[in-house]
This record gives sequence, structure tokens and C-alpha cells, in this order.
Amino acid sequence: MNFASDNVVGASLPVMQALMQANTGALAAYGADEITRRVKARFNEIFEREVSVFLAATGTAANALALSSAVPPWGLCVCHQESHVIDDECGAPEFFMHGAKLIGLPGAAAKLEAQAVRTYLEGLPKSVKQMPPKALSISQATECGTIYRPDEIAALSAVCRDHGMSLHMDGARFVNALVSLGCTPAEMTWKQGVDILSFGATKNGCLMAEAIVVFKPELAEGLDYRSKRAGQIISKGRLIAAQLEGYFAADHWLANARHANRMAALLAEGLMRHPSVRLAWPAEANEVFPILPRRLSDALKSAGAVFMGWTEASLPKGERIGSDEALIRLVASFATTESEVRQFLDVVDETLSQQAAE
Amino acid sequence: MNFASDNVVGASLPVMQALMQANTGALAAYGADEITRRVKARFNEIFEREVSVFLAATGTAANALALSSAVPPWGLCVCHQESHVIDDECGAPEFFMHGAKLIGLPGAAAKLEAQAVRTYLEGLPKSVKQMPPKALSISQATECGTIYRPDEIAALSAVCRDHGMSLHMDGARFVNALVSLGCTPAEMTWKQGVDILSFGATKNGCLMAEAIVVFKPELAEGLDYRSKRAGQIISKGRLIAAQLEGYFAADHWLANARHANRMAALLAEGLMRHPSVRLAWPAEANEVFPILPRRLSDALKSAGAVFMGWTEASLPKGERIGSDEALIRLVASFATTESEVRQFLDVVDETLSQQAAE
Amino acid sequence: MNFASDNVVGASLPVMQALMQANTGALAAYGADEITRRVKARFNEIFEREVSVFLAATGTAANALALSSAVPPWGLCVCHQESHVIDDECGAPEFFMHGAKLIGLPGAAAKLEAQAVRTYLEGLPKSVKQMPPKALSISQATECGTIYRPDEIAALSAVCRDHGMSLHMDGARFVNALVSLGCTPAEMTWKQGVDILSFGATKNGCLMAEAIVVFKPELAEGLDYRSKRAGQIISKGRLIAAQLEGYFAADHWLANARHANRMAALLAEGLMRHPSVRLAWPAEANEVFPILPRRLSDALKSAGAVFMGWTEASLPKGERIGSDEALIRLVASFATTESEVRQFLDVVDETLSQQAAE
Amino acid sequence: MNFASDNVVGASLPVMQALMQANTGALAAYGADEITRRVKARFNEIFEREVSVFLAATGTAANALALSSAVPPWGLCVCHQESHVIDDECGAPEFFMHGAKLIGLPGAAAKLEAQAVRTYLEGLPKSVKQMPPKALSISQATECGTIYRPDEIAALSAVCRDHGMSLHMDGARFVNALVSLGCTPAEMTWKQGVDILSFGATKNGCLMAEAIVVFKPELAEGLDYRSKRAGQIISKGRLIAAQLEGYFAADHWLANARHANRMAALLAEGLMRHPSVRLAWPAEANEVFPILPRRLSDALKSAGAVFMGWTEASLPKGERIGSDEALIRLVASFATTESEVRQFLDVVDETLSQQAAE
Repeated sequence: MNFASDNVVGASLPVMQALMQANTGALAAYGADEITRRVKARFNEIFEREVSVFLAATGTAANALALSSAVPPWGLCVCHQESHVIDDECGAPEFFMHGAKLIGLPGAAAKLEAQAVRTYLEGLPKSVKQMPPKALSISQATECGTIYRPDEIAALSAVCRDHGMSLHMDGARFVNALVSLGCTPAEMTWKQGVDILSFGATKNGCLMAEAIVVFKPELAEGLDYRSKRAGQIISKGRLIAAQLEGYFAADHWLANARHANRMAALLAEGLMRHPSVRLAWPAEANEVFPILPRRLSDALKSAGAVFMGWTEASLPKGERIGSDEALIRLVASFATTESEVRQFLDVVDETLSQQAAE
Repeated sequence: MNFASDNVVGASLPVMQALMQANTGALAAYGADEITRRVKARFNEIFEREVSVFLAATGTAANALALSSAVPPWGLCVCHQESHVIDDECGAPEFFMHGAKLIGLPGAAAKLEAQAVRTYLEGLPKSVKQMPPKALSISQATECGTIYRPDEIAALSAVCRDHGMSLHMDGARFVNALVSLGCTPAEMTWKQGVDILSFGATKNGCLMAEAIVVFKPELAEGLDYRSKRAGQIISKGRLIAAQLEGYFAADHWLANARHANRMAALLAEGLMRHPSVRLAWPAEANEVFPILPRRLSDALKSAGAVFMGWTEASLPKGERIGSDEALIRLVASFATTESEVRQFLDVVDETLSQQAAE
Repeated sequence: MNFASDNVVGASLPVMQALMQANTGALAAYGADEITRRVKARFNEIFEREVSVFLAATGTAANALALSSAVPPWGLCVCHQESHVIDDECGAPEFFMHGAKLIGLPGAAAKLEAQAVRTYLEGLPKSVKQMPPKALSISQATECGTIYRPDEIAALSAVCRDHGMSLHMDGARFVNALVSLGCTPAEMTWKQGVDILSFGATKNGCLMAEAIVVFKPELAEGLDYRSKRAGQIISKGRLIAAQLEGYFAADHWLANARHANRMAALLAEGLMRHPSVRLAWPAEANEVFPILPRRLSDALKSAGAVFMGWTEASLPKGERIGSDEALIRLVASFATTESEVRQFLDVVDETLSQQAAE
Repeated sequence: MNFASDNVVGASLPVMQALMQANTGALAAYGADEITRRVKARFNEIFEREVSVFLAATGTAANALALSSAVPPWGLCVCHQESHVIDDECGAPEFFMHGAKLIGLPGAAAKLEAQAVRTYLEGLPKSVKQMPPKALSISQATECGTIYRPDEIAALSAVCRDHGMSLHMDGARFVNALVSLGCTPAEMTWKQGVDILSFGATKNGCLMAEAIVVFKPELAEGLDYRSKRAGQIISKGRLIAAQLEGYFAADHWLANARHANRMAALLAEGLMRHPSVRLAWPAEANEVFPILPRRLSDALKSAGAVFMGWTEASLPKGERIGSDEALIRLVASFATTESEVRQFLDVVDETLSQQAAE
């Protein structure tokens, strides 16, 4: 019952098998191999157009590299104030962007609203003392497990175009959002004006495989050099490419995300059956954020469940967590089993019925 | 017959098996797992003292991170003019060191001599216009396949101490040098005054596993943060740790390097039997740099052998390559087979006896 | 009646005379001259101890250099959310600190409270994902024209010591604060635990002369190199030094600040005589922030007064600006004349008595 | 008799007078003032076309800012191996370019030859391991006091265009070169393909006034922000602008340089009258590099002459400095007087005739 994150498990079987298979024989190093070429071509198919693809070892690097190509060292990158890029990457974007600044704006459920971003941008002083905004970064799915609808993305991209900014999508949980929306990768990205995407695969079944997908061609300039000088071009490059080949084969990636989302939905449903539990935000992808009695939280831990407490900072206005309540995060992955979920919900049912009885 | 590099092959079997084994189950992410802890402890044993270890995804990142902890942004890092850090990493050290400067000095067989380094340092103008030297970086084995003897390392470290500099060792081929010298890891590093080491494992049998090993404790300060913000902390951290565990088990790492070195020795011996072939530098580790008739080089390529031409820049003084000769690099790895070597040498023998007959 | 800023005027006469005097003859370049040596010695006297002094061309550079010596590239610098370093320097600190992050905290009247800083620091997650706090930067006087009392500085420095952080003071209006408090430079800085100071002289009568004064010796390491590589070591270095010599002579610097503060006090008193005007914050140095009828603001502009509107963001809780009111900033300098102030107040009196009559 | 450098003297009288005049009254800060506007317009006239101008406090900052706009952080900047940018600026270019690399090529008399640059560029490996060349920086006049002829500049710019590189000119001694060639500023810069210029005025009579002049419009993008975040936008901006206004008035700048060059020519002529003295390079601007008997060098010092010894590194092939000889640098400035020169030459004559007599 480890719901701490979707990166506490290893890789899924097809991914590992692809990796094993690719391990034999001699291949050109540094991504000049055949497997890497094939995988890059696959991205064109997936996104229904020519894209530039740069493989990376970590999501932090993918985000930071993507932003560094969109924001000059003297520019501003706007994002949500709880986004991973501003909060959880130890300043990697600032390092890769050479001191450019991230500005975090508020927004319900970790989502930015187009109008709020527009208002912020229009209020910026026009002065050489003020770094000019050059990119907007959004997370899909968000840190609160919520999802931007295509029209919301389009509205944000319209703001970006009006202000000469690029639109970056942090897709650490890209596929979870994708299958939840039921749209195509193209519909969730460049068709709504996304310029550059951090395409995450690690959390959804790979061991270590991320990619930067560039839709606005000028953002690809120099990204290979940036990647190399960031130590992100793996010498045995097949390592990442082979994982992705296994990941994409037979729609394995989509199946993994659908499974994770379904497990999260089961968790949400099972929890919501109890009036003393409510969700901080709708469980739209593979994460569930219940507010529950502290005794239940303790009971779950005692029963061996692993999960993280979460910050109240992003709660909807008016929503409060009672002194005997806790806000926690449950993350389901491709590897989460239905029996784990049932075991977890059994503890919930049992604990709450006991409490009711008391 | 692919002798292009030691990173054109995948991982060795024990490494892959360790990786497979570690793939199941849930473990804490970002290197807080049990396997990572075990591997770090293993480094203490290997180096016979307490060391700080930081795992990294690539050798470029390991070098650049190590140097960034030894050189402030306003400092100078001295290295050989053909070293990997100055020539082959697209400015990664400069990026991680925030604009600190690498200065490449000449030296026979890609090795720096203590006295030459001392003379250079003493000649530096003492002025605020001149960045002060803060580190010396040497490669073990070097780019020419040669090796620093322990006393040579000690002499260089004495120069460093006299000038307040740290001594960094780029150990991309650390183990090849180690088994060639027949000394212990401690004897080849901190006992001679090495302060920080890039410990390479990828070329010698891992898929992707490097480590920074810190002997001078103050150089470890902040390296975890530097690593995170460089996107080098793998979320499924067991990925690297498990490889290293398989790598170290049953002296597999030493066996791999011994094998590679032996294959290189076989290549060297076989080549040297022919008076028309000579070695640019002694084959002290797993690389051989023959100067051979161009017709032989062509014949080898026609027969399917893969290798790289090499630059004459570092040839010993007086040594010239004739217009009908070629300088090439042959790299043997853990995966190089004796039959590959024999096949290669058969082509050599055949071609040269034909030539002799003509 | 130009109250837009204290840098809209040139240098004061003694400063210009010192500059003229120093202009003749040949002197060593790059700050190796006699005048620079004398001025540096003068700083020791002023601060009643040995200090390290680095002259700089601009306040932005002085702040950014000072912070870069206190915060490693992977560290956090805490400051007030309206401070100059975070808001008005186009990312200079982030550039000089190589991507380290500034975090702005709220606080009444642009001042930080020790307890609030402590609470924030204690709430920071201890994780490699989170940059560790390395410095606190405060402004004396603040952006709202208020002043930290020595005991408030001491309380903040205690927080810094508890968290291993350095304390930086942005003293762009150092002397205005100093004469307002009536204490010595030592009492306002190192005796309360300030580690490094941006000592501003430009706003208070120089043409262009700033200095970084270092009290914690290790923060001086490399600052000369940092300064040179930032293009802040003036070749005809006497330029800055001579200004400072003229500035310090015969307590001219103190007289200048006293005058500016007195002019601000006159403005404040004159304004406060009218019940329809109130001050957003007490006028503790050379700046006055009145909230006044919009019609008065317009009338003043029509009469030729120059001043800036100010942001309401830092107003005390509960304080609101009415729809027919304006918040403006009036800055007095060494060059502000009493007749200018009277002329301004005459317009105020006239306009408000007219309004009263209507 | 101070010939140590052209920055050991203060400003020329017209420059100081312009500065004094501009000191009174209130003007907008940060370069938004009328004087700055006028001076920028003056640059358009001087260069006979629309140019973008950014004032800077130091030549180091001007060079580093200019290069940072021409070279991305992952790019290479080619220059002469003895150029100021690579040798005398403590890594400022690397800091401002965020870790981009300077590569110094050899060349007689501190000049780069177009064909040698072309050969170097064509030999660069095309690989992601190798930073791509993005700019060429030349010094006019050079570190050896020599000058590029317009056709030589045109040849270098042709190489740049062929390789997608920008051409930067370090004009710390721009006017000395200009009046020596007798051509117009346009003919020495953009008409030959120079894209961006560091226009030096400090050495030629200002106190502290440099400018970046941009001919290729895209290189101007963001330079104002870069300048602000580098702490190079002077708050009392009139300070620099007023100097330049005095500098340009009545062709004062040209007169200053003509005088300095004439003084250098006098020195050269006087020295060359003696067979035991020879010039290392022709004295084409305001610097003279004689190779002279060591006893003469000592005698000159004893007589109070101030000058620097110079490196033999750039001597023409075959040229050697005898064990009883010295290579020195004599720099003449606008302030050098004919009587100083005569006094110096008298010592020369006297010493050498004594020696001849001995």
C-alpha cells in the first residue's frame, strides 16, 4: 500500500524487456543509434506532425532545459506558485536559465486562469528594472491532480501570444492527463498553442526516460548543445530510447496511465462513500487528495499504508482543515494493484465504522 | 569488431541482472532507498575510509559537478589541453562552474608533469585581472590510454597544495588504470592527495552509473543541492545504485577492467609484431593507438572493423605520421571478445603479408 | 520641486571639487592608487574596526556582489517582498549569485520581523529539492522610508546565526537612516550582527560611488575577483575614491543626510497639518509617503511638482486608499531646498483651503 | 614620464567641464535624461546610420555585455590569444556569457588573419561535444599597438558570415586606430561587417565612459536588461553622457587621439635613431614596444620613467630578446606632453651615448 508517489516503483515489464533486448550488441554512443532514431520518429507519429525531440534523464532536467530555451537569462517565467518548477527542483530552472526568474501566481487547484495571468502581466511595470515575461509554464496534470481542459490551455496560450511569451507544459504526468481527457496528444498540446513540452515517462512506467518535445521550431535551436553541457546526453543512449520504445509499443503507455487513473478513481470513490471524508480537489488523474479524520490517517499508517501529508496552501477559499483532520496525498501508479486499493479501503471502512460505533 | 569506444556496448550481465532484481517493489525515491545506502557504504570499504558519494547519470555531469565544488565562479581550473573536460563536454564544466575558466596545458601522452604545472602557476600574473588557480584536473587513464603512476599523482598534488588548489581526478576509465597499476583505489587517489574523483562505471560495464567520490570533506558541501539542481538526482534512484551493486559484487568491476585491458594488450602485441606498425603511446589501459599503413587502416574498415581516427596533436615531439600512414584509436571493453581481437589481427596479418609480398 | 528620487540631482559641491582636484596627474589604475588606499583606511575609522572595502559603480552592483559572496548558487536569499533587490534590479542578484533564489516575505512598512522570518525558516522543508537559506537581506532605510532600530537588527541577526545565514544590509540610504537613529555606523551594523553592507553614497551626494563593506572576513574572499569580472573595477579608480574622500571630509556626508531628512520632515509636517492628508508610514528618513486627495495630487503636478505614485501593496492592514485619494512618494535629497519645500506646501495649503471652501 | 598606460591620467579638460556643467539641476535618472538622449543621437551621426547605443561604466563591462548578446551560453567566441577579453578581464566575458567559451588563436602582432581563422573553424569537429562558434572578437587597436586595415576587417567578417558568426570589435583604443587609418568610423566598422562594437572613451580622455554600439539590430535585443542586471546602468546617468558630450564636441575626441598617436610616434622615432633599439611591432597607434638594452631600461626607470615590461609571447617568429635586452611598452595618452617625451628621449640618448663611449 505505497501511495507515496508514482516514482517509488521500478519500471513496468514491457519497458524492462525492451531495455534488456536493447542491451546486446554494439551501437553508436550519445544518441546516434538506430533505436534513438526510431523513437524520435515515433514522436512525430504520436504528435501528428514534425517535432524536435531531446531525450533527458530526469524530469527536472527536461523542465529546466525546456525553460532555458524559452527564457533568456534576463527574462521572467510565470508559473503557478505551487508548481514543481518553482518549488521542488532546487532552483534547477534558475540554474539552466542562468538566473532568469520564476514568478509564481496563485490559482485554485494549482491551475492558472488565463484572465488572472493577463491581469498580472498587464500590471507589470514597463521598465528596465523589471525583467520582461518570456514564458508561461503550466503543469498537466497539476500538483493537485487536476487537469487543464484544452480550451483552458488555448486561453492561456492566447495570453502568451499577446505578450510575446512561449507556453511550456510540464508533462510529468502527461499521459494521466491525456487519457483522462480522452483527447489526442496533439489536441492537448500544439493545437492549443503549447510551444514546448516536458514529456514525462518515468512516473508512468519507465525507469528513467523523459523527453523535451518542441513544437515552436526556434526553441529547438541549441537544445542539443544545452543538453550535452548539462550532462544529459547519456553515452549509452539506447538506455533511454529502448525504454521509450517498449513504453510506446502496443499502447502500453496509455494502458499504464488508464490503470493508474482507474486505481485513483477507485480510491476516491471508496473514500467518498464516507461522509467524514471529502476531497480537496477532484481526482482527475492518478492522484487523490482526501481530507479525512486524523484518526483515520493514523490508522492507515499503522496498517502499513505509505502516503504523504499535503500542504493546505492551495485549498479552495473557505475550505479549512479541522484540527482533527488531515490532508493527504495518495498517488496511484501503473503498478498499483486493485488488491492494494481494496486493502486500503478496507482499513478506511473498518476505522470509520469503528469510529461511528464509538 | 567494434573498437570505436567502450560505450558502444550495453551493460554486462551481472549489472543488468542486479538492475532487473531491483526493479520490483516500492522504494523511496530520489536516492533515499536502501540500495543506494548500501552502495554508498560500499564506497567506504572500497576506498578504505569515509568518503562522500554522489551518484550521477553521466560522466560529463560527474566531472562538471565535481569541478563546480572545487572551483569558484571566479577561479581557474588547470587541465591537460586534450582532456575530456576541456575538449569533449561542450562546456559543461564552464556551465556548472558558472563561467570559471579551464586552462589546458601541454604534456606528452596527455599527461601533465608536476614541474610543468608548477612553472605555469608560478608564471601567472598576480593581479585581479587574472583568475586565480583553484583546481587541477587530471584524467586516469588519460585520453591517450596512458596512466599516472602514484608518485606522479603525489607530485601533482604537492603542486596543488603549494598553490591552494584542489586535485580532481577524472576517472572515466578509473578501473582500467587501477588494475593496470595493480594498486588499491586508496593508493591511486586520496593517499596521493586526490581531493575529489569522478568515478566512472558506465564504460566498464554499467548502463549508466557514475559517482562523485569526495575525499576533502569541504568539497562535499552543497554537492547534493548542486546535483539536484543539475537534474542529476534520478527519481527512481535505485536505477543507478542497483547497477553499482551488481558491478561491485564478486569483484565483477575488476574482472571487467582486467578483461578489457587484456584485450587491448592482445591488440597491441598483435599489431607490434609488424615492423610497419608502431604505437603512438604505450597501451597501458584498454586503449591502443597504433600508427599503421593507411592501406591497413582501409583494409580493416573494409573488413568491418569500427574505430576512430585520432588527432596527431599529442604525438611525442619528433614523431610524425607519414603521408601513407594513419593514427587510429582502438578501445577494448568488458564485452570485447578474444575472437573479435583475433579476427582483427588476422586482417592485419593478412593485409601486411600481402603488402610485403607486393 | 523634483521629489521623484534622490538620484535626479548631480553631486554635491564638495564631492565635485574633490573629483576635480583628483583629476590631475598620473596615478596607478584599477584602484591601486593612493586616494583609494586613503579612502579604504577611512572606512576603518568610520566603522571603528578593520573592514574590507570594495568600491563599486552602482548600488545594484554593490548589492548583487555582496549577495553573491554570501549565497552560493544553490542557496536561498530571504528579503522583504518589496525590497529593491527582488523588485527593482532586473534580476541582478540572481545573475551575480548564478541562479540562487530570492524569496520575498511580507512585513509591515517594508520591514521584516525577526519572528516572522524565523517562522518562515522553520517551515522550510528539509529536502534536497529545497534550496537552503544562506542569507537575509534587509534595507536600511526601507523602501517605505522606515528604519530598523538597532535592536530589531540584532533580533534578525540572531535568527540568521541560528540558521547559518549571513545578514546583508542594503544601505542605499544608509546615512539617512544613520542620522535619523543618531547612532554610529558600528552600532547600526556589525555590532548588531550585520555581516556585509552595501554602503550607498550616490543618493546622498556623490555622482557615482558605492562600496561593499565586509564585516565577516570570509565573505571578502574573492570579492575583488568577482568585482573585476563584473566590470565594476573602474580603470581610473580615483574617480570613485575621490568622490568618497570629498564626501567624508568634514562630516559632509552626515550633513547631507541630515539636510535631506529635515526637508522630508518639513514636508511631512506641512502635509500633516491637513486632516485630509495622512502618512502611509512614518517619515523616518528622507522619504514621505502621503495619502492625499487626488485633486491635490493633480494640483501639485500642475504646479510643476515631480513625484511618483506608489504601490498600495505594502499598506498596513486595514488601511485603504479611497477612490478619490492617491498614495505618492516624495523624496528629499541633499539638494532639496527649503524654498522648494515651501513652494510645494504652499500649493498644498492653497489647494486644500480652496477645496475646503468649495 | 608615466607611460604605464593611457588610464593613469584623469579626464581631459573639456570632458571635466562638460561633467561640471551637467551636474546642476534635476534630471531623470537611469539614462532617461536629455543629455543621454542627445549623446545617443550623436552616435547615429558619427556612424552615419541608425545604431543602438548602450552606455557602460567600464570597458570590461562593455566587452562582456557585447559578447553576451552575440554568443549564447553554449557557444564559442574566437579571439586572439593575447586579447584583453581572454587575458585581462578575470573571466568577465565568461561570466556575462554564462559559461560560453573563449578560444584564443595565435597571430602575428596580436592580429588575427582571416585565413587562419577560417582554417581553425573548418577544423572544428561537428559534434554536440563541441561548442559551435558564434562570434569573433578583434581588438582595434590591438594589444601590440597594431591596427587592422579595413580590408583585413572585411576579410574577417566574410569568414564570420560564412560560419554564422557575429563580428565584435573591442575598441578600447578605437579612436587611436581611427585617426591612424584616417578613415571614418563607418568605414572602420559596419561598412566592413562589424556587428557590434565596444566603443572606448575612457582611455582617450574621459573619466569613465564606454559605449556598446550595435550595428546588427538583433544583437540589441535585451541588451538594456542585460546592462541593468549587470549593474551597468548608472542612476545619475548624465554622468557618462555628459562626458561623452564634452568628448565629441568640436572633434575633441579626434584631437586627443591624434595627439596621443603623435606622442607615440615621437617616442618611436627618437628610439629608432639608435641602432641598439628596435621595435617589436610598428607603432601604429599610441603604443610603442621597443626592444632595448636592459641598461637603458634600468636607466629610464632610475630617471623616473614609468612603463611596463611586456611579454615576448607575441614576438614575430625568429625575433628573440637577448639576455641583455628588455621588451617594454610605452603608452602615450591625450595628456602626454612633448616635454615628457623629450625628457624620456634625452635619457635614452644620454644613456646610449655613454654606453657607446664605454
